[in-house]
Amino acid sequence: MNPSALEFFKTLLGEENLSNDPAVLSTYSYDSTRLEILPSCVLFPRNTQDIQAIVAYANTHKLPLIPRGAGSGMSGGSIGGGIILAMQKHFRKILHIDPLNLCVRLQPCVLNSALNSALAPHNLFFPPDPASASFSSVGGNIAENAGGMCALKYGVSKDYLLSAEIVTGGGEILRVGHNTYKDVAGYNLLGLLSGSEGTLAIFTELTLKLKPKPTHQRSLLLGFESIESLAHCSYTILSKGITPCAMEFLDTLTTQALNKLKPIYPKNAQAILIIKLDGNFLPALEYEIEEIRKIAKDFSPSIFKIAQNAQEEEEIWFGRKNASQANSIYGVKKLNEDITLPRSCVPNFLQEAKKIGEKYSLKIPCFGHIGDGNIHTNVFLPSLDLLPIGKDAIKELFSFALSLGGTLSGEHGIGISKSEYMPMAFLPQHLELFKNIKHAFDPNNILNPHKMGLD
Amino acid sequence: MNPSALEFFKTLLGEENLSNDPAVLSTYSYDSTRLEILPSCVLFPRNTQDIQAIVAYANTHKLPLIPRGAGSGMSGGSIGGGIILAMQKHFRKILHIDPLNLCVRLQPCVLNSALNSALAPHNLFFPPDPASASFSSVGGNIAENAGGMCALKYGVSKDYLLSAEIVTGGGEILRVGHNTYKDVAGYNLLGLLSGSEGTLAIFTELTLKLKPKPTHQRSLLLGFESIESLAHCSYTILSKGITPCAMEFLDTLTTQALNKLKPIYPKNAQAILIIKLDGNFLPALEYEIEEIRKIAKDFSPSIFKIAQNAQEEEEIWFGRKNASQANSIYGVKKLNEDITLPRSCVPNFLQEAKKIGEKYSLKIPCFGHIGDGNIHTNVFLPSLDLLPIGKDAIKELFSFALSLGGTLSGEHGIGISKSEYMPMAFLPQHLELFKNIKHAFDPNNILNPHKMGLD
Repeated sequence: MNPSALEFFKTLLGEENLSNDPAVLSTYSYDSTRLEILPSCVLFPRNTQDIQAIVAYANTHKLPLIPRGAGSGMSGGSIGGGIILAMQKHFRKILHIDPLNLCVRLQPCVLNSALNSALAPHNLFFPPDPASASFSSVGGNIAENAGGMCALKYGVSKDYLLSAEIVTGGGEILRVGHNTYKDVAGYNLLGLLSGSEGTLAIFTELTLKLKPKPTHQRSLLLGFESIESLAHCSYTILSKGITPCAMEFLDTLTTQALNKLKPIYPKNAQAILIIKLDGNFLPALEYEIEEIRKIAKDFSPSIFKIAQNAQEEEEIWFGRKNASQANSIYGVKKLNEDITLPRSCVPNFLQEAKKIGEKYSLKIPCFGHIGDGNIHTNVFLPSLDLLPIGKDAIKELFSFALSLGGTLSGEHGIGISKSEYMPMAFLPQHLELFKNIKHAFDPNNILNPHKMGLD
Repeated sequence: MNPSALEFFKTLLGEENLSNDPAVLSTYSYDSTRLEILPSCVLFPRNTQDIQAIVAYANTHKLPLIPRGAGSGMSGGSIGGGIILAMQKHFRKILHIDPLNLCVRLQPCVLNSALNSALAPHNLFFPPDPASASFSSVGGNIAENAGGMCALKYGVSKDYLLSAEIVTGGGEILRVGHNTYKDVAGYNLLGLLSGSEGTLAIFTELTLKLKPKPTHQRSLLLGFESIESLAHCSYTILSKGITPCAMEFLDTLTTQALNKLKPIYPKNAQAILIIKLDGNFLPALEYEIEEIRKIAKDFSPSIFKIAQNAQEEEEIWFGRKNASQANSIYGVKKLNEDITLPRSCVPNFLQEAKKIGEKYSLKIPCFGHIGDGNIHTNVFLPSLDLLPIGKDAIKELFSFALSLGGTLSGEHGIGISKSEYMPMAFLPQHLELFKNIKHAFDPNNILNPHKMGLD
C-alpha cells in the first residue's frame, strides 16, 4: 500500500486501528469460502465518521474498500485485494432493545447468537438462523440476506431490516427506512441493500425486527423409501397450511454416510425428513403432528418418530447437525453450493444431481431446506486435481437448476465464488441494470469491486 | 397529442386500442385521490411487445408514459398529463394457479378480489387486502406496495412478489426474480420495484406467493375509556406472541360519529379495538381469545365481546366498515392521510392530532391499523375554502409524525399528492439517490415523471 495512504489512515484512525502486518493481512485474507486473497491493509474504523472519511479518501484515490463483518461468508464477499474495512473491533454494541416495538437497534458486527442471548431475557428472538449463527454478524447476515432453517416459517434476513444508517459508496451518511411496520415513502432502499454484499453501501447501524419467542417446540423425524415420497409428503404438509419452523431433509448418500458414523437409520429409510414445529399453545403443535401423521400415511413412511424429551430431540437432529461431517467420506474437497428451486422441482433436480455425479464419477450428497427448495448441493472430489472436473459438474448442476426456474444461490450470495456463473443466470441487460444501480450508490466503483459478476 | 405520434400508436395497436376522445380522456383523468389531470391520450397495449414498442417511441420522442392498473390509487400514481398506458383491457388473465408451489402466475390487471375468488376452490388466498381489494389490481397493489388489515400477520404486497416480467423505462423486457422462496443472486430488483409507483418499469406479468386459506376465524371487540389504554393493551397482546390477522381501532371522534349513525357503543367506550384471529385449529383461537381476555383485564375494558356467529361477526365489524362514511359528518371535504408510526408512538401522535385539530378548528378523526401503527388520519374541512388551513394541519401532522420516527405513508404511496412533503421526510442526498436509481431504470425519465418528489 502507498505510504501516503497509510499515513493518512494512521492519522485518521490512530496507529492501533490499522495494520499491514503480514500476519494480520493473512488473517483477513480468507473467509468460509476457502479462497485466499491478501488485502493491502486492514482498517478498524471507530465510528461512522471514520468510515465516511475513509470512503472519501478511497474515492479520491480510487482505492477498493472491502467491508467485512465476522468473515464467515460462504462466497468471498468479505475478502479482496484492497483495503479491508474491518468492522468487528468497534461496531459490536447492542444499543437498544425495545420490547414494546419489537425491535432492536444495534451496530452491525454484533454476532447473531450474541444478539439472541441478549434477547432471551426479554422472551424475544431474531429469527434468521444461518448455520453460522454463533460466529456470523447480523450486519453480514443482512448484507448477504442470509437464510437458515427457520426461513420457511420466519423469512430471511431482509424481512427483519426496519432501518439502517449507511455510508454509501459515494460517501454520504444516510438513514434509510423507518422503524415502522409499513413504509412506502420513497424507493425501498432497505430491500435493495439487503443482499447487496457490501457493494453499494456500508452498514454502520441497524434496527431489526424481533419476534416473541415461542414457548413450545416439537420435533419429528420421518424416513421414506425415496426422495420423491419425502418431497411430496413435505409439500402436501405445507399446502395444508402447516408451516414448520424447520423442514430439513437428508438424501440417500447423506443417510448412508451418517449410518457409517453411527448406525441410526434402517435400510428402508433412503431419505430422512426432520420437522420442527413451534408455537405458544402445545395442543396446537400436537394437532399439527397428528395432521402430519395423517398426511404422511399416504407416503408410507418407514420411520415416524416424535421426540418426547430433550434427549430424543437431540437424537432426531443428530443426522442434520452431522451431515456435513459425515459426508466428508466422499472426498478430500467439497464444492458446496446452495442451489434453490421452485419446490416441486426438487425431486427432478436431485435425480439429475445423481446422474451428473455418475457421469463425472463424483459423489454429490444433498441435504438442506426441503421446505423452501434450498438444497445444499455438495460436490465431493476424491482428489484435489479433480477440481476442474468438479467445476464442470457444478456448471451442469447450475445449468439444470436454472432450466427448472431455480437460482444460483438461496442464501450464500454470489461474491467471488459464483461470479463466473452470473452470465448463465442473467442476460447482459440484467447485468447492465445491476451495474447502473451500483453506479447510483458508488459512482467510482470503490466498494467491493469485482464481485457479484458485475465486472 | 402530436398527430404523428397518434398515427404511430394507431398503426401499432389498431384503432380500437387507443383513444383521445375527450370522454375517454376524462375517464382516465382521475383515480381515488380526487385529483384530476387530463392525459394527452390513452393506449391499451395488447401484450409485452406493444409496451416495449411504446416505451421505445416514448424514449425517442421524450413523451411521458403513465402506467395505470385499475385506477384505484390514493396518491395520484396512475394519473398525469401524458400518455396513459391502460393495462386493464388486455392484461387481466390468471395464467396458472400452482397449488404445489403455492404461487400464481398472472397478468397485472387481475383484480385482487377476482384473484381471491379464483383461488378459493384451491383453498388458497393472496393475503394483501387493501380496502380497495374489490376494485384494485394486483399489479397496482405491488406497484404501490399496498397493505391492508391483514398486513400485521401476513405482511404487505411486496412480501408476495416471487418474480415478474417487466419493461424498464429504458425499454428492456426483463424477467426479474425466481419462483423460489429464497434467492440471493444479484440485486433484489423485486424489492426495489415493489412500491416504485410505476416510475422504474411496467409490470407485464407477475408470479405471486399464496397461502393456504385458514379454516377458522374469530372476531372480538373491546371498548376502552381511552386510546392510551387501547394502544397499550394492543401492544401487550402482540408482545405475548399473539398476532391477529387484523387489529383495528376507532378513536373517540369516530366512535361518536358511528353512534350518530346507529347507537352501538356505550358512553364509557371512548375507543374501540376490533381483533380478528385466524388459524386451522379452533382451540388455538380460543386459547388466544382467553389470553387476550387476561391481558385486557389490566386495561379495564368497558366492552369485551366475542362474535359467536356470522351475524355477531358482522355487528362487530360494522363500525370499522362504516367509519369513513360516519365521519363524513365532520366536514364536506376529507384530507385522508395514512401516516405510520413506530407502534409505541401512536398514543402520543393521536394526542397531538387532537391538539392540531383544536388549533385549526378542524375535526381529525383517526382510525385504522393499530397493530402496525398505520393510522388513517382524516382531516375534515367544514367548507372547501378551508383547504389551505387543512393543508397546514396536514403539514403539522406530518412534521410531528416524522419527529417520532414515523413515515409519510404506510400504504397509499407518495405519487402526486404527497410529493411536496418529500423534502420534509428526506435529505437532498436521499432524493439524489432516488433520482440516480430512477435514472438506472429510466434514463430519459419518461415513466411516471414528476411523482414521488423526484423533480
